[in-house]
Amino acid sequence: MSNRITSLFGIKYPIISGGMVWCSGWRLASAVSNAGGLGLIGAGSMHPEVLREHIQKCKAATDKPFGVNVPLMYPQIEEIMDIIISEGVKVVFTSAGNPKLWTKKLQEHGIIVTHVVSSSKFAIKCEEAGVDAVVAEGFEAGGHNGREETSTMVLIPQVRQSISIPLIAAGGIGTGGGMLAAFALGAEGVQMGTRFALTQESSASQEFKDLCLELKEGDTILSLKKLSPTRLVKNEFYNSVQTAEDRGASVEEMRELLGRGRSKKGIFEGNLIDGELEIGQISSLINDLPTAEHIVNSVVAEYNIKVEDITSRNIKF
Amino acid sequence: MSNRITSLFGIKYPIISGGMVWCSGWRLASAVSNAGGLGLIGAGSMHPEVLREHIQKCKAATDKPFGVNVPLMYPQIEEIMDIIISEGVKVVFTSAGNPKLWTKKLQEHGIIVTHVVSSSKFAIKCEEAGVDAVVAEGFEAGGHNGREETSTMVLIPQVRQSISIPLIAAGGIGTGGGMLAAFALGAEGVQMGTRFALTQESSASQEFKDLCLELKEGDTILSLKKLSPTRLVKNEFYNSVQTAEDRGASVEEMRELLGRGRSKKGIFEGNLIDGELEIGQISSLINDLPTAEHIVNSVVAEYNIKVEDITSRNIKF
Repeated sequence: MSNRITSLFGIKYPIISGGMVWCSGWRLASAVSNAGGLGLIGAGSMHPEVLREHIQKCKAATDKPFGVNVPLMYPQIEEIMDIIISEGVKVVFTSAGNPKLWTKKLQEHGIIVTHVVSSSKFAIKCEEAGVDAVVAEGFEAGGHNGREETSTMVLIPQVRQSISIPLIAAGGIGTGGGMLAAFALGAEGVQMGTRFALTQESSASQEFKDLCLELKEGDTILSLKKLSPTRLVKNEFYNSVQTAEDRGASVEEMRELLGRGRSKKGIFEGNLIDGELEIGQISSLINDLPTAEHIVNSVVAEYNIKVEDITSRNIKF
Repeated sequence: MSNRITSLFGIKYPIISGGMVWCSGWRLASAVSNAGGLGLIGAGSMHPEVLREHIQKCKAATDKPFGVNVPLMYPQIEEIMDIIISEGVKVVFTSAGNPKLWTKKLQEHGIIVTHVVSSSKFAIKCEEAGVDAVVAEGFEAGGHNGREETSTMVLIPQVRQSISIPLIAAGGIGTGGGMLAAFALGAEGVQMGTRFALTQESSASQEFKDLCLELKEGDTILSLKKLSPTRLVKNEFYNSVQTAEDRGASVEEMRELLGRGRSKKGIFEGNLIDGELEIGQISSLINDLPTAEHIVNSVVAEYNIKVEDITSRNIKF
């Protein structure tokens, strides 16, 4: 079967791996693409030349479509986009910025552009900017998140009725049941971050992965609301920033406390105490560390079983 | 068709109206039950003798099953339960307390007991306490809410794998698509609060209803986290409590500022400035004020269309 998402990207399954900082290198992206999904390289944690290397290695590792996720507030954004264009990348997911800035230029180079939003207001801006598809990401998602705190259950139907271009759901999805739920709400594809962060090919440290497998409900929280809302594990680093927020620390104090390189320290270097550990709520449901191919296959299999179950039982009221 | 929820309660559709303070009187409960769902009277905003009156009027208005929602921290809990038993109520939903306290006693009187939770940890306690079904309510829901902030998308599969008794999903559900999504995640019924609060039969004030129809994404927020997390409309009352929390007010200060009778003032009396306005995130998707019967029928119709669509197209990958 195909739908607008599989047709747009030329992929077998409408499953996309989020372009996550310190997790989404060429190994994960190519593994997801080889399994029939769309793998994304996360440029957010890469210097431009590192990104070039990952794109080149990804091209060597798969002949299937893959993409790059680019946070638009990236300081070296011009250089990043030049590399993406010159390396012949076919798919770009932009986030954290104005979709009008880069969409046309990228499309002129034959690149399919998808923008990530957390509200229907910005989804409408995306459609106006001419993007090819939208990712709508709910409150459950790990890492950077929307100020409206709208959950995936509420966000997807709201965005679906606001735009007519293809819609990908993200936030809280890690299973075939989650994929079917997203489709019932109006999505045509799913982007999974946390589920792919916890795979063999994810470049996160073993310490970070092991910690995430142990997380229970309530062990992540949307934090750093004064700066930029971010879902984190409640570790010592989180406790120190939250204590500061609770006593009314200013934005400047918060910035200083946060410092730089915290997510690298936590996710990539495995410093579980002082690092910023970004992961989604769905981590509480995850307790294995399989290959990305296994994830793609098992999500599709579970989705198909659920569709088959509905079809055979035809449970109407 | 039937499932474990329709069979348990003896109802036609697995749709339950939440027992909401100042919204869920006998008019709404009987209208939902007459339409084939399960209507609940919300005891949380009623003096014991007022509850008795609502139960008696509900019995007169419908010969279908209906229930009463009882927050277990209610000060006159013994009196409330005596009234429920003596009036021959057949279904009780308990919330905000230990399910062990009342389940057995109520069941001895032939009452079906369902308990509302916001985590799988408490869902397991419910099963151990012998309740007949569980409502798992996500972060999106209006009013009182869990400290873990787990969204419905994540909570339902997590609770589903933790217990084997029937499971009702709540939080962010207001459409047939939402109902199918909840079923895909493992639920067998849905409890809708916000959607039924915004109907003709809801006893909320016209001012409150009119305001809720205008709400956009991000206009409600989980607040009062130092006392008991509650989802509110961001009105002047919210601003004053949030300002106090932001400057580090103590629990005692917060209690004093909150005062008493705030939700009555807001929801029932229509004081949109000083009142506490409890409503769910899904209000952003709602812009009409139909009868409860229309809601039940349209949710079922949309759900059936979506099932038929899946069945006829059999969209597997």
